[in-house]
Amino acid sequence: MDRIPILRMGDALLVSIQVDMHDQLVLALEEDLTNRIAATGARGVMIDISSLEIVDSFIGRMLGNIAAVSRVLDAETVVVGMRPAVAITLVELGLSLPGVRTALNVERGMALIRRARA
Amino acid sequence: MDRIPILRMGDALLVSIQVDMHDQLVLALEEDLTNRIAATGARGVMIDISSLEIVDSFIGRMLGNIAAVSRVLDAETVVVGMRPAVAITLVELGLSLPGVRTALNVERGMALIRRARA
Repeated sequence: MDRIPILRMGDALLVSIQVDMHDQLVLALEEDLTNRIAATGARGVMIDISSLEIVDSFIGRMLGNIAAVSRVLDAETVVVGMRPAVAITLVELGLSLPGVRTALNVERGMALIRRARA
Repeated sequence: MDRIPILRMGDALLVSIQVDMHDQLVLALEEDLTNRIAATGARGVMIDISSLEIVDSFIGRMLGNIAAVSRVLDAETVVVGMRPAVAITLVELGLSLPGVRTALNVERGMALIRRARA
């Protein structure tokens, strides 16, 4: 696996993180995402992390970077599917995911992107 | 990774296959999918295989099984994102994915499910 697939859904792009992320994979994902935002004119990026049992500072930084780059390209980033235990650990670690919006699931994430753009 | 995440999108469920499938994972996916179809009343199942570089008879059988079980639960199965090279190999291997519909991408897959249900 050298690439994380990016799926297009209307005005938004959807990325489902299912594998262990390492530096190269993160860089490839950021590059692919920015290219896809530019090519499709997507207004939002949804990142599904429902498979992740741990979100550490490395993943937190990745999410923040993606959100920051997307914002420059005029797309909103929404993290969806976070497990309750992950949310608790994030707060305990003092990671607040600055600049990243969250939604409970893909449907609410889509609604959030639509509202933000209305 | 012991589970493949299943995302709900309106009337459909979306599964993105990104990891190597083995027997246990396939069984878990089939069980999770049938439970989710029953719980949500989903009318369609989209299986994204854009990460897969090879679809062999094992994966072909898995897709066929999922389609057959979903049909019994009154949900249509659409395989999306197949790479051109994979399509060529499938035909060369004589695997025609009986009972499985395909669409180029998620958006067309959603449209197919909506049309089939209209």
